Amino acid sequence: MVQRMIQEEKRQLRDLQMDCLDEWVTHYRSFSGEGQCAAYIPALEKANPFDLGICIIGPGGTVIKSGDWHVSFTLQSISKVISFIAACLGRGISYVLERVDVEPTGDPFNSIIRLEMHKPGKPFNPMINAGAITVASLLPGESPQNKIESLCTIIESIVGKRPTINEAVFQSEWQTAHRNRALAYYLKETGFLEVEVEEALEIYLKQCAIEVNAEDIAMIGLILAHDGYHPLRNEQIIPKEVARLTKSLMLTCGMYNASGKFAAFVGIPAKSGVSGGIMALVPPRSRQEVPFPNGCGIGIYGPAIDEYGNSHAGVMLLRHIAEKWDLSIF
Amino acid sequence: MVQRMIQEEKRQLRDLQMDCLDEWVTHYRSFSGEGQCAAYIPALEKANPFDLGICIIGPGGTVIKSGDWHVSFTLQSISKVISFIAACLGRGISYVLERVDVEPTGDPFNSIIRLEMHKPGKPFNPMINAGAITVASLLPGESPQNKIESLCTIIESIVGKRPTINEAVFQSEWQTAHRNRALAYYLKETGFLEVEVEEALEIYLKQCAIEVNAEDIAMIGLILAHDGYHPLRNEQIIPKEVARLTKSLMLTCGMYNASGKFAAFVGIPAKSGVSGGIMALVPPRSRQEVPFPNGCGIGIYGPAIDEYGNSHAGVMLLRHIAEKWDLSIF
Amino acid sequence: MVQRMIQEEKRQLRDLQMDCLDEWVTHYRSFSGEGQCAAYIPALEKANPFDLGICIIGPGGTVIKSGDWHVSFTLQSISKVISFIAACLGRGISYVLERVDVEPTGDPFNSIIRLEMHKPGKPFNPMINAGAITVASLLPGESPQNKIESLCTIIESIVGKRPTINEAVFQSEWQTAHRNRALAYYLKETGFLEVEVEEALEIYLKQCAIEVNAEDIAMIGLILAHDGYHPLRNEQIIPKEVARLTKSLMLTCGMYNASGKFAAFVGIPAKSGVSGGIMALVPPRSRQEVPFPNGCGIGIYGPAIDEYGNSHAGVMLLRHIAEKWDLSIF
Amino acid sequence: MVQRMIQEEKRQLRDLQMDCLDEWVTHYRSFSGEGQCAAYIPALEKANPFDLGICIIGPGGTVIKSGDWHVSFTLQSISKVISFIAACLGRGISYVLERVDVEPTGDPFNSIIRLEMHKPGKPFNPMINAGAITVASLLPGESPQNKIESLCTIIESIVGKRPTINEAVFQSEWQTAHRNRALAYYLKETGFLEVEVEEALEIYLKQCAIEVNAEDIAMIGLILAHDGYHPLRNEQIIPKEVARLTKSLMLTCGMYNASGKFAAFVGIPAKSGVSGGIMALVPPRSRQEVPFPNGCGIGIYGPAIDEYGNSHAGVMLLRHIAEKWDLSIF
Repeated sequence: MVQRMIQEEKRQLRDLQMDCLDEWVTHYRSFSGEGQCAAYIPALEKANPFDLGICIIGPGGTVIKSGDWHVSFTLQSISKVISFIAACLGRGISYVLERVDVEPTGDPFNSIIRLEMHKPGKPFNPMINAGAITVASLLPGESPQNKIESLCTIIESIVGKRPTINEAVFQSEWQTAHRNRALAYYLKETGFLEVEVEEALEIYLKQCAIEVNAEDIAMIGLILAHDGYHPLRNEQIIPKEVARLTKSLMLTCGMYNASGKFAAFVGIPAKSGVSGGIMALVPPRSRQEVPFPNGCGIGIYGPAIDEYGNSHAGVMLLRHIAEKWDLSIF
Repeated sequence: MVQRMIQEEKRQLRDLQMDCLDEWVTHYRSFSGEGQCAAYIPALEKANPFDLGICIIGPGGTVIKSGDWHVSFTLQSISKVISFIAACLGRGISYVLERVDVEPTGDPFNSIIRLEMHKPGKPFNPMINAGAITVASLLPGESPQNKIESLCTIIESIVGKRPTINEAVFQSEWQTAHRNRALAYYLKETGFLEVEVEEALEIYLKQCAIEVNAEDIAMIGLILAHDGYHPLRNEQIIPKEVARLTKSLMLTCGMYNASGKFAAFVGIPAKSGVSGGIMALVPPRSRQEVPFPNGCGIGIYGPAIDEYGNSHAGVMLLRHIAEKWDLSIF
Repeated sequence: MVQRMIQEEKRQLRDLQMDCLDEWVTHYRSFSGEGQCAAYIPALEKANPFDLGICIIGPGGTVIKSGDWHVSFTLQSISKVISFIAACLGRGISYVLERVDVEPTGDPFNSIIRLEMHKPGKPFNPMINAGAITVASLLPGESPQNKIESLCTIIESIVGKRPTINEAVFQSEWQTAHRNRALAYYLKETGFLEVEVEEALEIYLKQCAIEVNAEDIAMIGLILAHDGYHPLRNEQIIPKEVARLTKSLMLTCGMYNASGKFAAFVGIPAKSGVSGGIMALVPPRSRQEVPFPNGCGIGIYGPAIDEYGNSHAGVMLLRHIAEKWDLSIF
Repeated sequence: MVQRMIQEEKRQLRDLQMDCLDEWVTHYRSFSGEGQCAAYIPALEKANPFDLGICIIGPGGTVIKSGDWHVSFTLQSISKVISFIAACLGRGISYVLERVDVEPTGDPFNSIIRLEMHKPGKPFNPMINAGAITVASLLPGESPQNKIESLCTIIESIVGKRPTINEAVFQSEWQTAHRNRALAYYLKETGFLEVEVEEALEIYLKQCAIEVNAEDIAMIGLILAHDGYHPLRNEQIIPKEVARLTKSLMLTCGMYNASGKFAAFVGIPAKSGVSGGIMALVPPRSRQEVPFPNGCGIGIYGPAIDEYGNSHAGVMLLRHIAEKWDLSIF
């Protein structure tokens, strides 16, 4: 079967005249000026706003890349996806879902209102900060260090190298995480946070500071696309139920409070971070005449973000590709 | 291609030993007692809470049915999907989206809070009442009567017969639509309602009172599954872009404030109504070994609803089928 | 006792060199340009924004006036006070308070959020629109006409002439009362509105359109100052408990969402309306060396209103007088 | 003048047959079972729920006491009044009011919603926790210790002895102040908190843990009643403008989200704490035939609190006295 995939992918990529990807990156890069790098974390503000890169990996091993796909950036909110997976692996889905729901909210990612309005204050989903901090506290391991290690181990098992934590970014966020502390203390009071607040924040902010590049997150996306199965290593990394649940969360809640618009006009599961990364994926689908009919993982990096917190040029590029190659899952 | 579909469907259905569907309906019918018929509309309260029926239609024309699939019920919130489609057909997507967003909210369907909290008060999506009333006002046609007719015409073009409006249900809702009137007057003040309030309510409540059965909505679902193309009549009923947009809305917002959970555990676009109907669909996908790989439309009727407003037994049945037949789009 | 009051008042007024009032009116009139006439009701917009008038009436019958005290204006929100009194007279305090609370909110006068956030949706006080519409429905009388008459009768018993309703203002508001209709339908659904919505709105909007001048409302203020007793007619018009309750509501909720600031820096019970009226009062107090130690009623008219809905120059004038004459109740 | 006051007070108290106060305390003590001691602070839970005591001090030096007036308790929210005064003394009223408004909210004392809903997040008043933590950060002094000392110095200047801080209560609250930390971090992010969060909390929680008895707070109330002037020591302790502002805040916001009802049915400035204390006061007023026409300070202690956080028996007792002696300021 993998043989068949490889052959299909090769044929399609030949047909695609892949240089179109370079053209598209160049075109959409020019829109970066309409966004701007996240200002509240000094380390992020130093990024080059005109960086734009993409990496797409097919299940047969085909890798196509363009632009600044190799530039390192920190996961930020993309880590919420991996943390949710790790918590489900360590505690079981039902244990995790007793502490965090899976409903989209329409609210900004750092909103606190809903915790008070809806008793008893269970966070609505793991993709907003309140839910992500809760999930961070559920990671397997006794100490913050162990919990972060459990996360890095999953990433290593997928991308093949152990990621590092950008200490400067972590320190920068740690000093200014007032709103996240407000959320965490609120969750502590309502009983949804299992560890101490400062521990939960250390875990959460360190997971946000994990360094990756577009290729790394494309590979994670690919594994999710294939229900947790690593098609290149022939190994089930994540149970299918966890992968499916994660993909649904990415689609309904992954692109901040523009998730609905992204589902409508791009139509694939994706998770963005304020550092400008987007981890997206395409599950296998039966449109045989299009590129990657057996699905793919997509990693994007473009640090100038829009009003919602999503890579401005990155979303435009992804929308264009999704339309051209008919990637939508709908 | 249709020939191939028909052959595939026939083979699969033979393999499926279709009597399992009857077993499942019987099994999940017994859970109806955990829900109850909507009490606030007298006509709905008179339904038999233990009714449960399902109809599934494949693109090759295969129709499988079980239980009370033939019982008539009113569309209620399922009409929001068809109304949104009709408004997009009549006014264009961009015109409609200037007046209603496509973001899920996490709020109850009749919530008014967000209209005041988020200036200038644009409804968040067409699947909550505020958005649906706005969309009803955008339907093509000069009078309420014309607007309703435009809706019925679309339904007729899909299911092959013109639907009727249950006047008793309409009158019953018209008398008690205090909350909907509150929403509509609020929208009038903020300028999002283009017609008079009482006209908008007449349109909205009449569309809610359109009578269908499970087979009818399965057929509508099928056409959406196939991007608006009617595979049996070989005709494009709805433009592909409108169909895709509609499916994304059903997935992110279609099952009231349990939409996230439904996406997570069933994983297909669906829209429910408080009368107990669920219109669902499965787009084509590449899992070749499963039933309906080329997609299908699904109609369910089970009037005992849960705390969110969704058919209690219907959701359980749909989840079971989705798991057994691997219907998830993720 | 009245003899003593008259003598005291006369002595003080001689000492006051009353021409200072004219000076002050002239001075604060010049600030009218910082406010503007309410635009959403055409009839109000036609007012002269530089009108400013005041009338103060002491219990001994002393009347001092300055500026445009004689200009007619409609009660608007000031009617909420009189309507609350009339409802208490007709139904009893406890009956009324089962349907409306007496807690300030900090929200805009036309806010609807709290009705949904706080179950079961009892309006927080009679000075915001939601509470005032509820109270209007509780007025004594079978028909809207009777209910309005009961209000006019109270006013007549105080000011000595029957007030008229400005039909043009009523019609103007009736056509554009979308937000008030939204509030009223919401209240109808939650069961707090005893009459039909359109009836409640007719009553409420007609009471808003009752015409008065600054002297009329000064007289009503005087009667409240004296716990409902008419010192000039020697008659108890309003029971003491109702008068006290009303004065506390004016102080905590009377000046829209600037009530706290008004209490802090002026310190007397007052109720304003968007037409630019302020009905204020000073209860008797023991600062013997100041004007009106036995209290007084104050009426102000200045149609240019500030961001909160209060007469801009009127509040400034009142604050100045309160400081000069030490009127604060604290 | 003080001579006159003393004579008046003596005469009235003789007339009052002061044993009625003992009767009333005994009567209302029996209602304590309808409330309960605050459970979330262990040290408070250990109080005797049937304690009830009162102390009233007149400007002539008359002190009447009954019941458990001598029992020590911690100020808790009553400290918000003194802290606000101290901040105004140290920084000036306008500086303080740039950081905290004076509008009542209708929300629970520990609500966080409004900080996000109303940009830029200025706390609505100093009597809710968000405002009180902000004010604590504004106290004069460089260190938390200095700031607390400035508070104790004001109390000492009024009651004549330096108060102590109950270290056990402070430690108990410090450990469990999750919600207050959430508020403080939120305020830090929005820029309203001038010191570090942990410092602000130390100040705030230590001020809450200051020990007093009913006589102490009656004396503070007396000084406020007399516009900051200490009638027994013949000294202006608090500027008149600060005292007036403080009294208005007590009336509009002092009794948690029952402030409106307390103003309506008791009608005097008061501030309660969850430890069961109520500090109230009556400004001079011209009802000559009643007790304490020249005003008084009132201290109450009754640790069984009601649903709002106010001493259950204490409020009943105060309401009874206010009615019998006509204490209302309205």
